[in-house]
Amino acid sequence: MKTIGYAAQAAGSPLALFSFERRALRPGDVAIEILYCGVCHSDLHQVRNDWGWARFPLVPGHEIVGRVVAVGADVVGFQPGDPVAVGCMVDSCQECDQCHAGEEQFCRNGMTQTYADRDRITGELTQGGYSRHIVVRQEFVLAVPEGLDLSRAAPLLCAGITTYSPLRQWGVGPGSRVGVIGLGGLGHMAVKLAAALGAHVTVISRTRAKEQDALALGADALLASGDTAAMKAAASAFDLIIDTVPVRHDVTPYMPLLDVDGTLVIVGQVGPLEPPATVPFIMGRRRLAGSLIGGIAETQELLDFCGRKNILPDCEMIRMDEIDTAFERMERADVRYRFVIDMASLPVPADAGF
Amino acid sequence: MKTIGYAAQAAGSPLALFSFERRALRPGDVAIEILYCGVCHSDLHQVRNDWGWARFPLVPGHEIVGRVVAVGADVVGFQPGDPVAVGCMVDSCQECDQCHAGEEQFCRNGMTQTYADRDRITGELTQGGYSRHIVVRQEFVLAVPEGLDLSRAAPLLCAGITTYSPLRQWGVGPGSRVGVIGLGGLGHMAVKLAAALGAHVTVISRTRAKEQDALALGADALLASGDTAAMKAAASAFDLIIDTVPVRHDVTPYMPLLDVDGTLVIVGQVGPLEPPATVPFIMGRRRLAGSLIGGIAETQELLDFCGRKNILPDCEMIRMDEIDTAFERMERADVRYRFVIDMASLPVPADAGF
Repeated sequence: MKTIGYAAQAAGSPLALFSFERRALRPGDVAIEILYCGVCHSDLHQVRNDWGWARFPLVPGHEIVGRVVAVGADVVGFQPGDPVAVGCMVDSCQECDQCHAGEEQFCRNGMTQTYADRDRITGELTQGGYSRHIVVRQEFVLAVPEGLDLSRAAPLLCAGITTYSPLRQWGVGPGSRVGVIGLGGLGHMAVKLAAALGAHVTVISRTRAKEQDALALGADALLASGDTAAMKAAASAFDLIIDTVPVRHDVTPYMPLLDVDGTLVIVGQVGPLEPPATVPFIMGRRRLAGSLIGGIAETQELLDFCGRKNILPDCEMIRMDEIDTAFERMERADVRYRFVIDMASLPVPADAGF
Repeated sequence: MKTIGYAAQAAGSPLALFSFERRALRPGDVAIEILYCGVCHSDLHQVRNDWGWARFPLVPGHEIVGRVVAVGADVVGFQPGDPVAVGCMVDSCQECDQCHAGEEQFCRNGMTQTYADRDRITGELTQGGYSRHIVVRQEFVLAVPEGLDLSRAAPLLCAGITTYSPLRQWGVGPGSRVGVIGLGGLGHMAVKLAAALGAHVTVISRTRAKEQDALALGADALLASGDTAAMKAAASAFDLIIDTVPVRHDVTPYMPLLDVDGTLVIVGQVGPLEPPATVPFIMGRRRLAGSLIGGIAETQELLDFCGRKNILPDCEMIRMDEIDTAFERMERADVRYRFVIDMASLPVPADAGF
């Protein structure tokens, strides 16, 4: 199946129009016409090969929303026209304890990433959602619930599940005291989701500049980390802190904000942290953890939860040919709060076959 | 009540004979003749004021075993002659949620340390177990179970509870896979206790040099952290790692040894760690935590557990006047595995009053 997308041909090269083949439908596959794709900071990291594991040509995009256009003979539960979504994974071994536990992101044999990875059967490169179509095995296709605005749902597939999963893993609900560090794509979802789960939510930001934004997103308060007295007064005030800061930083000033047995979860920075002091860990049995997206069942739970509660990311819609500007603005944190590409801005190849 | 001990008169000064007063018995107090006191690395840190919060004159020692010599009018459950123990705490507010939960070490109003702290009522300096007597409120006095060798029990009060508490908090039992980094006072207790709880225990050491020692203590295996192939083969092989390393170090090589949701618990280093990489945290939802001794009820549970299972630290008995040499040897890690001071090597003051 021919399709079209935007690809980087080599590390750091600009994204440009790219015609390529999607695989022919296997019996368990779902073919999807992509309507919208969110722009994640990791897309830019991968285009530049910042982490060293990208593969080129590379079509980024793992926040995918579209409609089913064809299904393989063994597909159950999806039919043409259904609104569906695909996130950061398109396959896993399906046989290990982690896959059986619904934690495909921790598959013992390595999950297959939506792009810049290799298909488990043919070894061909996987290509992401900055394209008109995608073919994905049914186990990794999510149902978008009735009524969820398709044009805004895409960021749930990465920014959403990346913040929802730790909130659920650490049992956030009514009475929980949740802090959110950083108010970007991930942070704004953490605020909305934690609030919807019933938690008392505090955005932790350097200054009070974002206070009104934080409250508008559903936060109950803003704590200025630059305000020494306020930080001291907030000691032991949080059960869970979601740290979305995407660069090297020091968690030491935040750790004392956790109550006994509280956890700070890193979901932004991929790389080193500044040297942490152990005293706040020891004096309160506090914990530092990481979290990686979420399993497929948990992602479906998130979509259903957002459908019921009408929770949607705040998005700015762009055309595919505006992606370079979007990347530049994202680097300056000049987006509220997530870019979403309208895939109708890409032509459908005449010979696509649908 | 007059007693005698060894004190540092100022930061860094050598320990020397010191006559001082213990407080007169309050109604809830227990007066103890100290028989044995363990030598903890933190005693040396405090004598030197390495952490900046020591107070002088300073009598160190918080691994205390002795016999009751007198009790106040309101004391229940202790009488003269009873074998008892005192650990790192001698008081707390007894009113906050943490005290009510039996986590006095995390008392919201600050627990009172056995030495180099201030009595909650009079403000006088607390003085530790390198002395002939101590007076402690009954809530912080532990019963030494029948049959536990008093001459070896002292290190349970700090090295023991510091490693037992995280083993219990993280639910170690049969089938648990526990790693222990460092084979000193804390590490050797972690091995004995984890093994007694039924876990599969691996000592993680730079080389294989300590393999026979590790096995003799009850470990099932030794993993050489300097062996790249062995470390790679041990990926995801541990549920819990107890890290007893008492100096700045890098946890990054150890984090991938944890299974999904596994935790590395820092109990040794008080100060900074090297900059940790976040990838092993994220790719497995792994956690780094701290832990601080344990509550009084948990410490009593430990003593009872050791009594039932006849678990005892490996000790080297010294006289009080050998403490400087012991400190020097401890700094060179030249001790298997804990020094214990025989307090019979100190005279009883003629006017002690017992």
